[in-house]
Amino acid sequence: MQYQAPVDDMMFLVRDVFSLTKRLGHIADFSDFDEDLYHAILEEAGKFATGVLQPINRSGDEEGCHFEDGVVTTPKGFKEAYQAYVEGGWQSITADPNYGGQGLPKALHVLIEEMFYSANTSFCLYGSLTGGATQLLQAHADDATKEKYLPNLISGKWSGSMCLTEAHAGSDLGLLKTKAEPNDDGSYSIEGSKIFITGGEHDMSENIIHLVLARLPDAPAGPKGISLFLVPKFLVNDDGSLGERNGIVCGSIEHKMGIKASSTCVMNMDNAKGWLIGPPHRGLACMFTMMNLERLSIGIQGIGLGEMSYQQANTYANERLQGKATDGEAPAPLIKHGDVQRMLNTMESFNKGGRALGVWLGSYLDVAFHSEDKEAVKVADVMSAWLTPIAKAYFTDAGYETCTIGQQVFGGHGYVREWGMEQHVRDCRIAQIYEGTNGIQALDLVGRKLIGSKGEFLDTFLSEINADLESLPASDHKDKVIRHLSELKELSTTIISKSADKPDMPQLIACDYLHYVALVTYAYLWLKMEVAAKGELDDKSDFFFKRVLPRTLGLKASIESELY
Amino acid sequence: MQYQAPVDDMMFLVRDVFSLTKRLGHIADFSDFDEDLYHAILEEAGKFATGVLQPINRSGDEEGCHFEDGVVTTPKGFKEAYQAYVEGGWQSITADPNYGGQGLPKALHVLIEEMFYSANTSFCLYGSLTGGATQLLQAHADDATKEKYLPNLISGKWSGSMCLTEAHAGSDLGLLKTKAEPNDDGSYSIEGSKIFITGGEHDMSENIIHLVLARLPDAPAGPKGISLFLVPKFLVNDDGSLGERNGIVCGSIEHKMGIKASSTCVMNMDNAKGWLIGPPHRGLACMFTMMNLERLSIGIQGIGLGEMSYQQANTYANERLQGKATDGEAPAPLIKHGDVQRMLNTMESFNKGGRALGVWLGSYLDVAFHSEDKEAVKVADVMSAWLTPIAKAYFTDAGYETCTIGQQVFGGHGYVREWGMEQHVRDCRIAQIYEGTNGIQALDLVGRKLIGSKGEFLDTFLSEINADLESLPASDHKDKVIRHLSELKELSTTIISKSADKPDMPQLIACDYLHYVALVTYAYLWLKMEVAAKGELDDKSDFFFKRVLPRTLGLKASIESELY
Repeated sequence: MQYQAPVDDMMFLVRDVFSLTKRLGHIADFSDFDEDLYHAILEEAGKFATGVLQPINRSGDEEGCHFEDGVVTTPKGFKEAYQAYVEGGWQSITADPNYGGQGLPKALHVLIEEMFYSANTSFCLYGSLTGGATQLLQAHADDATKEKYLPNLISGKWSGSMCLTEAHAGSDLGLLKTKAEPNDDGSYSIEGSKIFITGGEHDMSENIIHLVLARLPDAPAGPKGISLFLVPKFLVNDDGSLGERNGIVCGSIEHKMGIKASSTCVMNMDNAKGWLIGPPHRGLACMFTMMNLERLSIGIQGIGLGEMSYQQANTYANERLQGKATDGEAPAPLIKHGDVQRMLNTMESFNKGGRALGVWLGSYLDVAFHSEDKEAVKVADVMSAWLTPIAKAYFTDAGYETCTIGQQVFGGHGYVREWGMEQHVRDCRIAQIYEGTNGIQALDLVGRKLIGSKGEFLDTFLSEINADLESLPASDHKDKVIRHLSELKELSTTIISKSADKPDMPQLIACDYLHYVALVTYAYLWLKMEVAAKGELDDKSDFFFKRVLPRTLGLKASIESELY
Repeated sequence: MQYQAPVDDMMFLVRDVFSLTKRLGHIADFSDFDEDLYHAILEEAGKFATGVLQPINRSGDEEGCHFEDGVVTTPKGFKEAYQAYVEGGWQSITADPNYGGQGLPKALHVLIEEMFYSANTSFCLYGSLTGGATQLLQAHADDATKEKYLPNLISGKWSGSMCLTEAHAGSDLGLLKTKAEPNDDGSYSIEGSKIFITGGEHDMSENIIHLVLARLPDAPAGPKGISLFLVPKFLVNDDGSLGERNGIVCGSIEHKMGIKASSTCVMNMDNAKGWLIGPPHRGLACMFTMMNLERLSIGIQGIGLGEMSYQQANTYANERLQGKATDGEAPAPLIKHGDVQRMLNTMESFNKGGRALGVWLGSYLDVAFHSEDKEAVKVADVMSAWLTPIAKAYFTDAGYETCTIGQQVFGGHGYVREWGMEQHVRDCRIAQIYEGTNGIQALDLVGRKLIGSKGEFLDTFLSEINADLESLPASDHKDKVIRHLSELKELSTTIISKSADKPDMPQLIACDYLHYVALVTYAYLWLKMEVAAKGELDDKSDFFFKRVLPRTLGLKASIESELY
């Protein structure tokens, strides 16, 4: 079943819901862009997703990656698709124009990412990691390093990897042991072994630039003794040509539940030559630069797969004849059965709500990275910090639920590989785990963001929404949003005030709290979409408010049970 | 990680919670059995699960079944394990002693099934289908047919399959097209093709007895024109020896998300010789005989996999050191983090609540099939009819959630195949789909059972619980159960009264209603367990009431939104 790029739905967000060009109008970096350009790019991205990426999605899952003697071969067609991806400029969307990037807003990029994740999640991951490496170098490398590495990373000629996790150090990176000893020439010699390295080795790019966390000899224990190093697969000569093979080698690849066409590597470093990026012992702090962007991207994986699953389930529900409808038609298409309608509507509630949040958050990231208005940047930093864990965790939790529902619509046919519905579930599942598990996201939200800021981040979030709500007409849904926001404020205040006396409480409630905030945020965004759609989304919005938003009731009671 | 058969927890239900020997004491068929026997059987079942079934679970998943020229080969070790299964008498637990069965209660059998599903779900399915065929023949075949087929099915020397689904007829069996033409010798010639046939072909038993739904030449259209036929793989001579190969052949096997060691076959019938079982056109009615038993068994799959996932996650959480605990320990075992405690407690809430419901429902099935007390049978029939869709759907929905949580506890290690956590998720997923999708179960509960009986089934359910509640001491939890039962009654009454004017409503709310009733039922059972455990389950019960039961709030609001 061919993917249909939802360009109209996306332009509805860009134009009608968020007025993106106006919203980002004060930013010089974006002054050349207009809605026609955004529309043209989305159209092209949709064609690329449908024409190049989707055709190798299921075959990539069936074949998987191959490993032999340190060499990883991607599935049939991936190399050619990657070449087309590079030629199409898809790696460079948001990158710095000084090094060949297109400098487009993240608020647009999330939509392109969604399409690519819909069409072929495994494929996307290679580029996503390259994007992460690019952002890190843009922010923390010196000019010579940027000149040397950025143009080829931004074009996609070279790819990137992030080497963080070790066997005993996953969520707790403070435990990592990889060592970096200084060489005489200013470089470092790195020894250690990393696991779960996405795109750590593959055959699609000429070189791979690894960003590796390791400890200097004088490093203090724990997370404040970790430094960041650039470790290329092939050393790069001063003229930019590739030199000798570096001592970083893939030891094996993982056999996984899904994303089978994405290589997940054990990377062994034996006297690997690396260069320090950023100050010594500040590697984790450097990482934070890109964390919001990467976490949002991984969240988008959940929406992309949810959208793909929805499109297939919706088509199937309209074609498959089974059972008697309440109007007497028999056999009736599945879509005429109320329980199937409930399933499809639930999927759309999550997909459309999540997509709106992705664009909204993307626009704050754009302000944070590009605006010269200091006050706006301050608000945008807080909003990005607040919304990112919500987006990452809720998009992927809801995406997994959505893909599971889509599979259910297909009945037994959803369980066999042939139809592809089960692959979405398997591919989506990892997004709840990597880039910080969803539990870690929830702790970040409650511990660092809510309690850590003594509620200031929440207040900024509430102010931003309340200011916008003033422009929306009165309605039942608006009343519901206002009531939920006020309940959220009250609940959060209690959590903050009780946290001193109940040190275990924040962890106990974290995941429920994140889901609660996410649903309230979706309610605001559904209201906003409903108003912008002038009647055309009323049924779907109504479904969200009637059937999905009430989950807050159970979450709130569950949280409160740990407060009193 | 080795499976630990939870024999003590199971005997706690058998002895302390349900007093099974007393509960079934009035039934002559069970008069020879006592608690020591039940305990000994559970111990042996645990050893068999751990020693024989679990060791070939992951290898079976990796290897899968092989198909070539109509022949299905099961993974390495399955044939030998099946032989041991037959020799151990594990196929014959509940079967009729007149044909070699052990005639033990279903309330005990569900616990044995749970262990086997925990250890090796794919393996269990072969026997589960044989059990289904056995029950059908016990109930509907004539004596000669019983003599000819039952002893070898009950021993497991022969296996069984249920051939229902066709490519265009899944949930809606009324659409099936397979034809049966009478032969001169009293047999029928059957033509057609069936899909998704579990155990339709394999290499573990000498013969396979297929029970096939087909239409006679004069059959009316729809579900009332379907008859049931016995179609053996090898014809059986009058002396019981195997005769010629029958015209029912496996055309291919499915490649699936999970249960890969269970063969899922396309079965093609070309002049296949079959014998009518039960009256003409009454095939679906015959099926209903075994449906409650089979649906409960498939529900147990969810609990078995949930329990296995819990055991592994719990062990891992106690061993894996990561992060700082609130008491300062660093690195601390995962179990010291509140969010991990929440995950493990949620898993236990579902596993223990579900196990209790399985035994409770099993005991009603025992009364329904074996008691001579007509009034008791009447109540037990209603209770079985009411609880079965709840058990099937909620055990498996909660089982999928539980396996997903267990995988999450392992972080990235949960996503790679090596640790086995992702296999549980994949193996569990099918249980929400087959044996009637969980949507179909919900429609059965709301449409046929609640509205169809004008609330009588619900009243029986409430009376049974209320009568038992009188014997339980006053407590906060008891008050909560009483309040929820009263809300359930009120909500259900409204659903029934509104259903005439709102024909689409029952479908729209069905799944939410089923989850709502399930949670209220679990609350009653958690209260019962808490009382029986005399303080030892208070923390876990408290978790259920505080953190899981509140989901009813959202479900109730969601349902009510379609009522008014």
